[in-house]
Amino acid sequence: MLQPELKFRRDKIRSLMALQGIDAALITCNANLIYTYGCVVSGYIYLPLHSPALLFFKRPNNITGEHAFPIRKPEQIVDLLKEQGLPMPAKLMLEGDELPYTEYCRLASLFPEAEVVNGTPLIRQARSVKTPIEIEMFRRSGIAHTKAYEQIPSVYRPGMTDIEFSIEIERLMRLQGCLGIFRVFGRSMEIFMGSVLTGDNAGYPSPYDFALGGQGLDPALPGGANKTPLKEGQSVMVDLGGNFNGYMGDMSRVFSIGKLPEEAYAAHQVCLDIQEKIASIARPGVPCEKLYDTAIEIVTAAGFADKFMGTGQQAKFIGHGIGLEINEAPVLAPRMKQELEPGMVFALEPKIVLPGVGPVGIENSWVVTNEGIEKLTNCNEEIIELK
Amino acid sequence: MLQPELKFRRDKIRSLMALQGIDAALITCNANLIYTYGCVVSGYIYLPLHSPALLFFKRPNNITGEHAFPIRKPEQIVDLLKEQGLPMPAKLMLEGDELPYTEYCRLASLFPEAEVVNGTPLIRQARSVKTPIEIEMFRRSGIAHTKAYEQIPSVYRPGMTDIEFSIEIERLMRLQGCLGIFRVFGRSMEIFMGSVLTGDNAGYPSPYDFALGGQGLDPALPGGANKTPLKEGQSVMVDLGGNFNGYMGDMSRVFSIGKLPEEAYAAHQVCLDIQEKIASIARPGVPCEKLYDTAIEIVTAAGFADKFMGTGQQAKFIGHGIGLEINEAPVLAPRMKQELEPGMVFALEPKIVLPGVGPVGIENSWVVTNEGIEKLTNCNEEIIELK
Repeated sequence: MLQPELKFRRDKIRSLMALQGIDAALITCNANLIYTYGCVVSGYIYLPLHSPALLFFKRPNNITGEHAFPIRKPEQIVDLLKEQGLPMPAKLMLEGDELPYTEYCRLASLFPEAEVVNGTPLIRQARSVKTPIEIEMFRRSGIAHTKAYEQIPSVYRPGMTDIEFSIEIERLMRLQGCLGIFRVFGRSMEIFMGSVLTGDNAGYPSPYDFALGGQGLDPALPGGANKTPLKEGQSVMVDLGGNFNGYMGDMSRVFSIGKLPEEAYAAHQVCLDIQEKIASIARPGVPCEKLYDTAIEIVTAAGFADKFMGTGQQAKFIGHGIGLEINEAPVLAPRMKQELEPGMVFALEPKIVLPGVGPVGIENSWVVTNEGIEKLTNCNEEIIELK
Repeated sequence: MLQPELKFRRDKIRSLMALQGIDAALITCNANLIYTYGCVVSGYIYLPLHSPALLFFKRPNNITGEHAFPIRKPEQIVDLLKEQGLPMPAKLMLEGDELPYTEYCRLASLFPEAEVVNGTPLIRQARSVKTPIEIEMFRRSGIAHTKAYEQIPSVYRPGMTDIEFSIEIERLMRLQGCLGIFRVFGRSMEIFMGSVLTGDNAGYPSPYDFALGGQGLDPALPGGANKTPLKEGQSVMVDLGGNFNGYMGDMSRVFSIGKLPEEAYAAHQVCLDIQEKIASIARPGVPCEKLYDTAIEIVTAAGFADKFMGTGQQAKFIGHGIGLEINEAPVLAPRMKQELEPGMVFALEPKIVLPGVGPVGIENSWVVTNEGIEKLTNCNEEIIELK
C-alpha cells in the first residue's frame, strides 16, 4: 500500500478526532491496522493529532522504519512516546467496540491522566467513505468474483448436495485469489466463506442478522448448506464473500435445477425490479431508509412481502455497507436517516425465499458516485439453469 | 448434544465458580455457548450457582423450552430473572477477555449491585480438561482429518504453486466434513483454514504466535502460502485445522518434491524422536515446561536448535492445548509449571525449518490418559514423496 494513501486515511481519522477534541488514538485491531498501516501486525499504531503516526510492534520481528519501535508489551509504549518528545494525550481513543474488556482496561491504564473514549464509531465513520484506491480494490475484487461465478455451472454435477456444490465453488473462488477469510465487525457473527442455500434450508432461521440463514453442517457453526440434495425444481443461491485483497465484495446469484415454478421467476424479477428502482434513485443525499422503504413498497405490491428476506425469520434490511468488514456503515434499513455520500460502498441484496422451491433474488456491490450509484459486480443476473 | 453432557460441563464451571464465591455467570461468546449450551445462538446463558441455567435469546426465533426466554435486548434479562424468582447475584462473572469493552460494560451495568469479575480464565480452566464425549469428538475428528490427509498425494500435480496445492487440500478437508472455520482465542490471530508452507516461505515471520509463519497472499491476511512454486528438492508442510465438529484437531504432515537433502531427513527424524520421547514421559502430573525442555535438549544435541520452530523468528512453544479453539490451555512452553491432567488434549508440533529446503517435522493431537498420552491423529509420519 502506498504511503500517501495510508497517510490520507489516517488524516481522515484525525479530522474526526479533532472535531471531538481527541488528541491521540491507539489502534491495534486487525481491520483498523490494515486501514491505517496497510497490513496486519501484532502491535499498535499510535496516532497523534498533530504528529506522525508511530508503530509499536511485537511481531513480525523484521519491521524497519523511522517510526517503528519493537516492544515486548504495551507497557513500554509510554516511555517510548516520552523519548520521542511526545506529550501525553489529554483525551485518548481506543477501539472500545472491538477490544476485549481486559485489553481495553490494560491499554487505558497506560495513560492514567487521560480521558479515554471509545474510538470505534469514529474509525468506522472514517472507513465508511472509501478512497479512490479502496474503490479500485473493490473494482478488481468484483472482476475476480465474477470470473469465479461464471464458472459455477461447470462444476455442477447432478446428484450433488448443496455442500458438495459449495465446496466446488469455494475452490473456484480460491483459484481466483480469494483469501477465504470472512471478516465481520462484532464478536458474534461467524461464517466460513459464505453460503450456498437451496430449497427450504434457505428459510432456516439464523442466529445472526444475516439476510438468509441456513442450518449449516453442525450446531457449532450454524448457517449455510446442510447436505440438502440439489433437486429438480429447486433453486440454489450462491453468496460467497469476495475477499480478494482485504475488501469484502458481496455478490449473490441464483441457479436452478431444471425449471422452477413460474412464481420463482416472477419473484426473482421483483428483486431485479427492486434493484433497478433503487439504482435509479440512490444518490448522495438520499437517506438509507428511503431505499429500504422503496424495496418494501415494490415487494408488497408484488405480493411477496411475507417471503422477503426470509420466511420464518425475516431480516430487516436490504443492504449493508461493505469494506474491510462485511458489515460496515451505512445500513439500508428502516428508520436509518443516514444519507448516502460519494465513496460509500454497499451491498444491495433483495431476496425472496419461496417455500418448497428455495431462494431467489440478487446481490451486488455498489459504489456511490457523485451522480448516483455504480455496480462493481457485473455478472449475469438471470436464474441460470444447471445441467 | 445430550443434555446430561451439557449439564456436566456447566457443573464443571459452577464448581470453579463456587471456589471463587461467584454466584452467577452470564455467558454469550460463541465458543462458550457451544460448550455450555451445545450450539451457537445470539443470546445469553445465565448460569446461577444453585439453580438451572436460563437461555435468553435474540436469534434464531425458533427456540423453545422451559428455560428459554426470547429477548430483544439484554436489558430485559434482569426483569425476567426477577419473574423467575431468582435473586440478583452478589458476584457475577462475565467473559472479560472475550467480550468487547463496551459490551462488557453494558452487561455489567445491568447488575449495578453486583461485584463483576472476569470469568474467562475460569471458563478456560473448565474447558481445558475434556469430558469423555469431547475426547470422542476429537477421536472422530482425527479419523476424518486422516482420511483427508491420506488423499493429499493424489491431488499433487507437478508445476503447482503452494497455494494451488493448498486449495486442493482444503477441498479434500471440506469433502470429509471440515467446517472450515478456524476458531482462535483472542482477537488478533486470524487464519483461513491453516497453512501449506514450502521452501523459504516457511521461515517468513508471522505477526502471530504461530509455530511457523509464511508470507500469505496479501498483507491483509499474512500467513501461509505465497504462490511459491513447488520445486524439486523442497519440502512442503501441510497444517490445516481439523474442525469437523467444533473441536479443533491439529495435524501437520510433510511431503517432498522429489528427494530432499539428507539433512532434511535427519532433521525430520529429530522431530519424530522428540515426539517419541515426549510421548514416553508425558503423563498426569508432569509439568508442561518439562516437555518443552526435553524437546530443546534433543534438538540442541542434534544441532538444529537455531532452526527449531522457525529461523528468523522462533516460536517459544512446542505444543498447545486444543478444544473449541486452537489455543487452549495448557501451553507446552518454557517456565510453564502447569501439570498435565487426564482429559487434557493438546497438539505437539516439533518442527524444523531448513533454509533452501523448507519445513520438516510433525504435529499430532494427543489426549492425556490416566497413564500417559494417546495419539488422536494417526497417519503416516514419514516424509512422503509427491510425484
